[in-house]
Amino acid sequence: MAIITLTSDYGTKDYFTAAIKGAILSEAPEAQIVDISHKIAPFNIEEAAYILKNAYHHFPQGTIHMIGIDAEATSSKAHIICKVDGHYFIGADTGIFSLMFPLFKPEQIIALNIAQEDDSIPFPMKDVFVKAACHINRGGTLQVIGRQIDKLKDLIDFQPVLSADRKTLNGQVIYIDHYGNVISNITHKVFKESFASSEFEIKLPRKYSIKTVHKSYSQVTEGEMLALFNSAGHLEIAINKGDSNAANGASGLLGIKIKDRISIEFL
Amino acid sequence: MAIITLTSDYGTKDYFTAAIKGAILSEAPEAQIVDISHKIAPFNIEEAAYILKNAYHHFPQGTIHMIGIDAEATSSKAHIICKVDGHYFIGADTGIFSLMFPLFKPEQIIALNIAQEDDSIPFPMKDVFVKAACHINRGGTLQVIGRQIDKLKDLIDFQPVLSADRKTLNGQVIYIDHYGNVISNITHKVFKESFASSEFEIKLPRKYSIKTVHKSYSQVTEGEMLALFNSAGHLEIAINKGDSNAANGASGLLGIKIKDRISIEFL
Amino acid sequence: MAIITLTSDYGTKDYFTAAIKGAILSEAPEAQIVDISHKIAPFNIEEAAYILKNAYHHFPQGTIHMIGIDAEATSSKAHIICKVDGHYFIGADTGIFSLMFPLFKPEQIIALNIAQEDDSIPFPMKDVFVKAACHINRGGTLQVIGRQIDKLKDLIDFQPVLSADRKTLNGQVIYIDHYGNVISNITHKVFKESFASSEFEIKLPRKYSIKTVHKSYSQVTEGEMLALFNSAGHLEIAINKGDSNAANGASGLLGIKIKDRISIEFL
Repeated sequence: MAIITLTSDYGTKDYFTAAIKGAILSEAPEAQIVDISHKIAPFNIEEAAYILKNAYHHFPQGTIHMIGIDAEATSSKAHIICKVDGHYFIGADTGIFSLMFPLFKPEQIIALNIAQEDDSIPFPMKDVFVKAACHINRGGTLQVIGRQIDKLKDLIDFQPVLSADRKTLNGQVIYIDHYGNVISNITHKVFKESFASSEFEIKLPRKYSIKTVHKSYSQVTEGEMLALFNSAGHLEIAINKGDSNAANGASGLLGIKIKDRISIEFL
Repeated sequence: MAIITLTSDYGTKDYFTAAIKGAILSEAPEAQIVDISHKIAPFNIEEAAYILKNAYHHFPQGTIHMIGIDAEATSSKAHIICKVDGHYFIGADTGIFSLMFPLFKPEQIIALNIAQEDDSIPFPMKDVFVKAACHINRGGTLQVIGRQIDKLKDLIDFQPVLSADRKTLNGQVIYIDHYGNVISNITHKVFKESFASSEFEIKLPRKYSIKTVHKSYSQVTEGEMLALFNSAGHLEIAINKGDSNAANGASGLLGIKIKDRISIEFL
Repeated sequence: MAIITLTSDYGTKDYFTAAIKGAILSEAPEAQIVDISHKIAPFNIEEAAYILKNAYHHFPQGTIHMIGIDAEATSSKAHIICKVDGHYFIGADTGIFSLMFPLFKPEQIIALNIAQEDDSIPFPMKDVFVKAACHINRGGTLQVIGRQIDKLKDLIDFQPVLSADRKTLNGQVIYIDHYGNVISNITHKVFKESFASSEFEIKLPRKYSIKTVHKSYSQVTEGEMLALFNSAGHLEIAINKGDSNAANGASGLLGIKIKDRISIEFL
């Protein structure tokens, strides 16, 4: 039984997602369709990359992930199947694949040649990606529906930068989650590689700072600020139960926004 | 394996939708349940009709569509199964069926005689529609659970009107989608039937106007206004990637609201 | 085929829910996963208890209900499987079980001994509860994954209080639903037990009052205020189609909030 996941900026009100599910079930009645998120900010591929790369690997190998963000094909933006890490990703070549997998080499990249129906209005997620997903689900060869290519659009995310004296690791805020937790681009891996001293200070906007990385939210008392590496491995600034009054968590209470700087100074 | 879809104004927080899914799975454990939308504005059957009529036909024939909007039966509003276009629709006779299918003649209309349980509080979507859906799913005869009738409540949507001199097609805004795109009641079909000249001007509120119908969003540069027939076949006013800054797309940027006039003047 | 339901305060944007679904489908590919609600206010176990207790019993016996609210285990808050009424509930012992089942004696209570993976960041819903759910789904003995205990954290909800002269039943608002309907903690059962006279007055904030309990919304004209026992059996104050203009229903129109007093005076 195929698992097909959907990630989009469609929201949850319109008919778009249901039309896609209907089209999938018409071709593959036994498919397990799972919504990853339809609340991606419109056209925001950075946000989509963060969410999908932290969701996909929990699914079994062979899962098909459809991406409905900025999905119109243009002369410079092909429709792609990208096989990475045993999973299939179908979407437009917006750069999202390079954001999700800066280090992985895709096992296979196919530029799709499935055309929109004549005279139809563009709805590539339904007209093109569903056909590609059902083709994969039937065990079809990828070359039948496209041609192999070897390069994808390369977007480079702002990566944390270690200062020349190796004393400061400069990162930035890449995501605010539902609890108002502030997620930075400093991963546990980068932190360990840059690690210069067990004494350090995490510098936040507005002169806030934190000197410890905790292992869980409940290691501090309620209402207290903390830093921890979250379940995606990113350095996160949170306030323990900060949003229990819907006051919007660390982001709202500390006034921290996406793209704000977060740096670690090793003392 | 039956497919049962749900459309309602329940929102996504309360227990209503889950109770219905539990009741369905108790009777039909193998059912594929698909949410069309639970974000219909409360009691807004026009909105529900627009969303459901553009979603249902992507599902396989025989799919059962339950409608949980204004679903309380009254002396003038029966509970109905309406079979149209090979699909089953179950809902209260609010007029939604006539809005969805102004041109189709239903293959069968049944006024349900499934009673609420004695003394129970009304929850017809769960108590009545689930029973009807599971009866259909078991292959039961419709007459067992109701009596055939031949008329449904007839609501007439505001249709675009062509002026006497056939120079102006007057329509209005019927829906604003998640991207802030403005959807009119002028369909591609009506446009072609009224077509008087390849030169025309689409007149919008606040003196905005557009002289071309494009085939896709990306045919104009980002931030530019355009008109196109959307994937539902309706004339839509959009701003290419207008909502990428969450500025609410064409609706917000141009100040266009539901029921505003949109007309086409043939030159 | 196992049914596993999910209730959380995760919202619908982040990767959390999808990660859990992926983890479940990796272990139990045939599972039916149903979202109860992910819109619980952060850390609000009262709200979660109200929603889950009114949803779960519509599912078949043996259904597994996972609760992702305030789920971090601490020295005073164990991870629990609680079997009640033929259903399995998995969550942290926040007191939610006592709020859901003040009267039921659980058939079995297990304190889980499934550890987080070493050095991993806490995501107990995925790392612990999914394992427990899949163990139950495979028919495993509960004692294998925990030890039997006999007490859960006991939270006592504010219950309606009958005055000494048995003339006044004092309750309060516990929930505002999607339509702005005001839900009180006065259940039909308590109302009948306290019933002192067929003449009574329901006293609301701001000097509003109601003298009748109706059986359905449509028994009053549109825009009129009414009281009824809702499908969960709780006394509810509503305005018939009050939210059809998105004016937020009874809560918004009457200015009634959670924890406001609602009392019944028997005349």
